[in-house]
Amino acid sequence: MRLPLLPILFFSASFLPSNSLAQIKPASTAASAAEQYVNAHKSELTTGFDHLLAMPNVAADPAGLRANAQYLLAALQKRGASAQLLTLPGAPAVVYGEIRTPGATHTIVFYAHYDGQPVTPSEWTTLPFTPTLKTIDGQERIFARSAGDDKAAIFAQLSALDALRAAGIAPKANLRFVWEGEEEAGSPHLEQILMQHRDLVHGDIWLICDGPVDQSGQQTVVFGARGDTGLEITVYGPQHGLHSGHYGNWAPNPAMMLAQLLAGMEDSNGHALIPHFYDGIAPLSELEKQAIAEAPDNEAMLRKKFWLGRTDGNGAHLLNLLNLPSLNINGIASAQVGARATNVIPASAIADLDLRLVVGEDWRAQQQKVVDYIESQGYFVTDHEPTRAERTAHARVAWVVRNQNSYNAVRTPMDLPMAQEVIAAVKAARGKVVLLPTMGGSVPLGAMERAARTRTITVPIANFDDNQHTANENLRLQNLWNGIGTMAALETMP
Amino acid sequence: MRLPLLPILFFSASFLPSNSLAQIKPASTAASAAEQYVNAHKSELTTGFDHLLAMPNVAADPAGLRANAQYLLAALQKRGASAQLLTLPGAPAVVYGEIRTPGATHTIVFYAHYDGQPVTPSEWTTLPFTPTLKTIDGQERIFARSAGDDKAAIFAQLSALDALRAAGIAPKANLRFVWEGEEEAGSPHLEQILMQHRDLVHGDIWLICDGPVDQSGQQTVVFGARGDTGLEITVYGPQHGLHSGHYGNWAPNPAMMLAQLLAGMEDSNGHALIPHFYDGIAPLSELEKQAIAEAPDNEAMLRKKFWLGRTDGNGAHLLNLLNLPSLNINGIASAQVGARATNVIPASAIADLDLRLVVGEDWRAQQQKVVDYIESQGYFVTDHEPTRAERTAHARVAWVVRNQNSYNAVRTPMDLPMAQEVIAAVKAARGKVVLLPTMGGSVPLGAMERAARTRTITVPIANFDDNQHTANENLRLQNLWNGIGTMAALETMP
Repeated sequence: MRLPLLPILFFSASFLPSNSLAQIKPASTAASAAEQYVNAHKSELTTGFDHLLAMPNVAADPAGLRANAQYLLAALQKRGASAQLLTLPGAPAVVYGEIRTPGATHTIVFYAHYDGQPVTPSEWTTLPFTPTLKTIDGQERIFARSAGDDKAAIFAQLSALDALRAAGIAPKANLRFVWEGEEEAGSPHLEQILMQHRDLVHGDIWLICDGPVDQSGQQTVVFGARGDTGLEITVYGPQHGLHSGHYGNWAPNPAMMLAQLLAGMEDSNGHALIPHFYDGIAPLSELEKQAIAEAPDNEAMLRKKFWLGRTDGNGAHLLNLLNLPSLNINGIASAQVGARATNVIPASAIADLDLRLVVGEDWRAQQQKVVDYIESQGYFVTDHEPTRAERTAHARVAWVVRNQNSYNAVRTPMDLPMAQEVIAAVKAARGKVVLLPTMGGSVPLGAMERAARTRTITVPIANFDDNQHTANENLRLQNLWNGIGTMAALETMP
Repeated sequence: MRLPLLPILFFSASFLPSNSLAQIKPASTAASAAEQYVNAHKSELTTGFDHLLAMPNVAADPAGLRANAQYLLAALQKRGASAQLLTLPGAPAVVYGEIRTPGATHTIVFYAHYDGQPVTPSEWTTLPFTPTLKTIDGQERIFARSAGDDKAAIFAQLSALDALRAAGIAPKANLRFVWEGEEEAGSPHLEQILMQHRDLVHGDIWLICDGPVDQSGQQTVVFGARGDTGLEITVYGPQHGLHSGHYGNWAPNPAMMLAQLLAGMEDSNGHALIPHFYDGIAPLSELEKQAIAEAPDNEAMLRKKFWLGRTDGNGAHLLNLLNLPSLNINGIASAQVGARATNVIPASAIADLDLRLVVGEDWRAQQQKVVDYIESQGYFVTDHEPTRAERTAHARVAWVVRNQNSYNAVRTPMDLPMAQEVIAAVKAARGKVVLLPTMGGSVPLGAMERAARTRTITVPIANFDDNQHTANENLRLQNLWNGIGTMAALETMP
């Protein structure tokens, strides 16, 4: 999609070295300056990134998280930010910093997180906290936990400040940095911390610097995220496993009951059949539809990469399907398979469901639609492990646990002035940009927006194949270099 | 059901103590003699049974199995049998013994097995090879591995010989004992061993002394067993687990595919929908139908015991349903549930199926019906783990592993003269007897019948709630005492 370039704006002079001529440079110049800086400092940048990645940052290691926070606090202070740790007992600190620009009319908040997913070192080919450079298919990549998710974003924001200072380019807006330490644990304290510092964290826009860019490798700007909720469903057969010969055909098999219950929730193309599942969806705007139409077509590449002989959705493209709610079976289990299988009628069968939501839907209502469907199939649904009396009194019993750690979808309209500013800055830095109304994944953006009285736009920099959340996480180095340019452009937004 | 009592037959005198008057005693007298013997020797019988149970007898302990075999060989020899071990390299020995009766016109073979299921001591409340007497609901039970399955049968056969000798009652037929040491491992060498000793193991009837009596507690005689086969089905989604947000609605979910595939195999009452599933079933004879009609109605008791709010089969009784083939899901698995669940589109989903067969069906054909059904649902079916090329070339791919350790059902007609003799002997010993055309479970009776050129009838003695195959296996002691009487009656059959 094409959007008009913004008129070139001038920035206030307060941040400038006295001999700088930078005030006449346009936003794209910030990216050029970043590129020059990167080319001149690749070795020390790589060393600096390695240093950050070498600091263990998993939830099970609070001391490690504290060391990360202290390091990042000092890094912000060294770059002239007024910085502090926003704390709450029992929670990793939020690292907060502000660079005030006298005369600025806007405040831009950069969100990222410094914690990483848990690691199982035995699954890694290199040690997760020993950053290791490898060249794969001609591309240099650094392997370490959080290389992509999400220390790359933090390091890019810091390095962009250095590049701008070296080039004598000052910000035009007030810049704020909110770096969370608990994202991979589901951000259980973030909203509370933000609410306690509403004025500090407020901004005209929050830039969520997390996640991967488009699978095509092109820089991406994403305007929302799907909401997320879930259910765990357990259905019951006999009180304990029974011999499948002596009782087969007579004792109901819960694995079959579960299969039949789940099978009715979707057609064979992944379209949900649960009544009202698609009700209330806010339609995409023309601008959003146009953005999707102009996004790269990665279908064939992804099908090949994932060994897929077909996709769900009757031929619809991934980007369109991500703008619909989804019902996903995360896992199913009943008794044993493989070498441990025995000829048994299992006692129970379990399915874990993930429900993604789009704007216009409420997670509690979406859960209820699934529960209503289960009841419509003849089940007595309980919110507790059913008792003997309940199981003998009802032909079919399902225990449903509703995930309370849930939230709705959020989508920032692309035509908001602040959204147009972000698009222009990123385009100026990176040229071609993929604009997506929503990402398929979920981030609790709504909580951020409420606490900081702002809107959110996501600007990721990692490669999509960065193995985030699994072993051998890595960042393609060129994504880091590009990311420094992108962040420099955003740090000089008006 | 009522069957005419057989005329009282006299037995040959060769086995008798010289001063015995036993030759005028009817078959029921053998059971009476056994009862008197049991009442006079309960303490030493219990000690003897404990001694046998204390000998570890699991497949992982070949030395333990050898010790059991040697002990039982000596036990047979001590009772005047001509005994030997029938061996094959790598297989536990079959303990074989014969008591010849001059002038006998029939040969009766008693089959049992001395090996037990594997044990996980941590799951037991007492040690599996430390026989422990407990009184539960007023019933004395001995807890130990193989107490019910199947050393009780062996000990009853030996003790019945002692009781008969003490009462001066001799067998009328030749008696043969075939005690296997590999039943719980699926009898992989039994047929071969029997084929190498066809003349030794031949008999007019094989009495399979294994399994539990009817749930009502009444003595049971069973004339067949269902056949058994199985399939393991794996269906595929993406090559590795994918983020359910970023790819949900687009990447096919193999857990949903499996659910839909399985769901179509049966209706909601457990009736198979796979084409031709019930083809070719040999109908029950009038005598067999009558037997089922006269068997105890345990439905309500079993539903209560197993916490069942309904049963499959549209209200048909268990005993009728056991005379139909069954399709049972032994287990299903895809990714994780519970605390380990993550929001993922799994890479694959697996189901393990157990197929029970009745007379008239062939296990290879029954497997093929399921495979044909899977193909009819649009699957490309492989007999190997599918390659990348196969997975990308086909919309739906299933890997099906067909269980080759399979066999067909066997059913001995109740109106055979030898069947009538067995019914009469057991009725004379125990009074009321439950006659069942088939058991729901499976035993490779066909292999025994072919090798020994005989027919089989099953006479179990264990209580149905003996926890066979799980922890805390136990035998209700009264079942052992009754079993000694039943075996005494069978050992004096004409």
